[in-house]
Amino acid sequence: MSKPSIPKGTRDFAPQVMARRQWIFDTIRSAFARRGFQAIETPALENLSTLTGKYGEEGDQLIFKVLNNGDFLAKADGQVLDERDSKRLAFQISKKALRYDLTVPFARFVAMHRNELQLPFKRYQIQTVWRGDRPGRGRYQEFTQCDADIIGSEGLLNELELVELFHEALGDLGLPGVRIHMNDRRILTGFAASCGVSERLTDLTVAIDKFDKVGIEGVLRELEAQNFSSEVQAAAGQLFAIKGAGTDAMVELEKTFDHPLISAGLADMRQLWNWAAQRGISSPELVFSPGLARGLDYYTGAIFEVRIEDSPVGSVCGGGRYADLTGVFGWKGVSGVGISFGADRIYDVLEHFDAFPDAAACATDVLVMHMGDATLDASLDAAARLRSSGRVVEMYPDSAKLKKQFKYADDRGIAWAVVIGEDEWASKKLTLRNMRTSEQLTLELEEAIKRLS
Amino acid sequence: MSKPSIPKGTRDFAPQVMARRQWIFDTIRSAFARRGFQAIETPALENLSTLTGKYGEEGDQLIFKVLNNGDFLAKADGQVLDERDSKRLAFQISKKALRYDLTVPFARFVAMHRNELQLPFKRYQIQTVWRGDRPGRGRYQEFTQCDADIIGSEGLLNELELVELFHEALGDLGLPGVRIHMNDRRILTGFAASCGVSERLTDLTVAIDKFDKVGIEGVLRELEAQNFSSEVQAAAGQLFAIKGAGTDAMVELEKTFDHPLISAGLADMRQLWNWAAQRGISSPELVFSPGLARGLDYYTGAIFEVRIEDSPVGSVCGGGRYADLTGVFGWKGVSGVGISFGADRIYDVLEHFDAFPDAAACATDVLVMHMGDATLDASLDAAARLRSSGRVVEMYPDSAKLKKQFKYADDRGIAWAVVIGEDEWASKKLTLRNMRTSEQLTLELEEAIKRLS
Repeated sequence: MSKPSIPKGTRDFAPQVMARRQWIFDTIRSAFARRGFQAIETPALENLSTLTGKYGEEGDQLIFKVLNNGDFLAKADGQVLDERDSKRLAFQISKKALRYDLTVPFARFVAMHRNELQLPFKRYQIQTVWRGDRPGRGRYQEFTQCDADIIGSEGLLNELELVELFHEALGDLGLPGVRIHMNDRRILTGFAASCGVSERLTDLTVAIDKFDKVGIEGVLRELEAQNFSSEVQAAAGQLFAIKGAGTDAMVELEKTFDHPLISAGLADMRQLWNWAAQRGISSPELVFSPGLARGLDYYTGAIFEVRIEDSPVGSVCGGGRYADLTGVFGWKGVSGVGISFGADRIYDVLEHFDAFPDAAACATDVLVMHMGDATLDASLDAAARLRSSGRVVEMYPDSAKLKKQFKYADDRGIAWAVVIGEDEWASKKLTLRNMRTSEQLTLELEEAIKRLS
Repeated sequence: MSKPSIPKGTRDFAPQVMARRQWIFDTIRSAFARRGFQAIETPALENLSTLTGKYGEEGDQLIFKVLNNGDFLAKADGQVLDERDSKRLAFQISKKALRYDLTVPFARFVAMHRNELQLPFKRYQIQTVWRGDRPGRGRYQEFTQCDADIIGSEGLLNELELVELFHEALGDLGLPGVRIHMNDRRILTGFAASCGVSERLTDLTVAIDKFDKVGIEGVLRELEAQNFSSEVQAAAGQLFAIKGAGTDAMVELEKTFDHPLISAGLADMRQLWNWAAQRGISSPELVFSPGLARGLDYYTGAIFEVRIEDSPVGSVCGGGRYADLTGVFGWKGVSGVGISFGADRIYDVLEHFDAFPDAAACATDVLVMHMGDATLDASLDAAARLRSSGRVVEMYPDSAKLKKQFKYADDRGIAWAVVIGEDEWASKKLTLRNMRTSEQLTLELEEAIKRLS
């Protein structure tokens, strides 16, 4: 029998890590819920046909396919088998696949349940997704996404709400140096048009999107490699040279590049900027980033990306407006705007800054010791009473040596021990021991409860 | 493009259902946590080799295997392919599989992390599992288990704690007619021995285990079919004829069947019965069921099964003590006791009795109406202030007709609407509308907050 292990790119979450993760999810969930976002869940297993063709050719390769149960080869095409054609065979022996993100399942959900939904529909979804990426530092094959979307409403107040959600949820999480970068896809579309390369918008945004990783020099090299003219390269230089994080940059942008799409995008950005400022969200937290592209093709309006100053990870959140969520599932014209919190990266940032609060732990407050049969009932009663006062209480389950029981409390980081020995219990008293200081008090149960609260 | 759908046996959870599920999970989680159980999570994807051989031959067939990414046929055995041998090929083209239950992953976790754990280790785990069962009413291919286990302690207080957990969690869930059935595996082992069929214990328990579904007649038929003697059948008749739910039944059992294992099991049952009674848990909630078997082979001591009187589903919880959790993963002699809550069945029971509380809903309390740009800031301010007072508040995101906004509030079941028109706002007042009665009040924001709390 071999040593037990788990697949590369997956993780076990032990109690301390789990408590912190749970706290992150609860905090984000609570921020979603108090604005009336409603939770939904979709199955981990989707029909393979629902997922394929939605994430590009590379994405399709990374979808985990689930083998049909039973004699899966019975219906497979003999020729495909004889040719050892893995690609074609995969679709013959596998009908189901694991969720790759939460957006496509959400689109499928909306299309399937269109008659039950009231628009605008504000939903959130916190679930695991799976991707066959090569595992690496901070890159997992199984991780959790936290998405919020508002569909069926064009109003820019929705974008404002999502900016406020970033501000509130990340504030509740205690993340320092939050930077909410905003742009509008129309600014990039207008930029491409004003450079005369509208037909190569995707190539252009892919190159521009690399700015974070490779800087302006890298973007220019990439544009050169992609055969963009020196004029386009110069324009990109101008775009990234625009200074100032807020309305100054908007003014400069409009002066530098003149295009109706840029003006339309800027009008929304200005409105959003002003509203956000009135709600207490402004520079340096809010950053207008005219070069921000976000890779995904389907964004059509505002785009967001949240980064954390001086942190070791890239963006922790992203999102944007899309014109057509569900067209591919047969319901055209459902527009919306959505954001996603990267819980794993948020965890890494909080750990980096040692910023987890005490509440994000799974500490037991009190261990009631097992002192033998004579005071067992009293000990069980005390544990129950302490629990009903709101403390997390464990009763040691075996009549073990005191030393062993104290060691358990120490190892677990339990702050208090309650000892009910026969002698003290004769006068209805117990001993309350502070496990950190070893200080001990003999007192009545109700007094002990008061001390602990 | 075909109509979107999801695989048979999987489900979408729309907001109202989701809110109720979330409330069930939160309630169970909270009951676990206040007794110091610590949450862990294991990956959905385990190595296939971790799971196979643990659930019997039938179980192995129901494990969902995940196709290796890339050219999975490249390393497959040509002969196996040519012979179209699905069974053998599966292990060559699939290294990972989906979690089938939470017990085997927990055992794997304990064996892998043995040096980081403090014993006794009390863990809980609430996660999805997948099984390729034929989908049917109340039977899903993807569902959630809620498990709590205590390992590394032999003390019977652990069994008491789990009985208390059933009582508390199911009480918090408001389930009527809870019946916690208890037995001890040693009673069945002793019964088999006293009938002289120790070597056929598994066949015997499989037959006895069917009592719930087929009654005593069915059990006797099954014993006959399995070639058990008429003496064994008569003894089974006596076993199920034992009357009384508590200590009476224990006395009768000891009188009827004399065997040291039965006495040992009964000693523990009596102790547990007495302790539970002192903690306010007794007949009819607590039931001694000497015929209770629970199918799983690995139970060795106490076993539990919770049923709900007059409900349409079978058991809602189960569990028991096992002598060896992790031996198969190389760590022998780790004993423990664990229970599992069937959240899906609990949902069905609560729905059957129409017993979900109001708290298990995702209702927005207040909709702040969009009355145009003149009072937009005031409306956003009011929404924020109402939210900080603890209400769930939505701001309607578009400047739509009032009728449409009210209809949205009605459709969503929102109780209150706040309307800030220009005229009233001139005197810093707003209109608070009760959406159920259509009653309207004009008042200041702080007064409105008082009314809503």
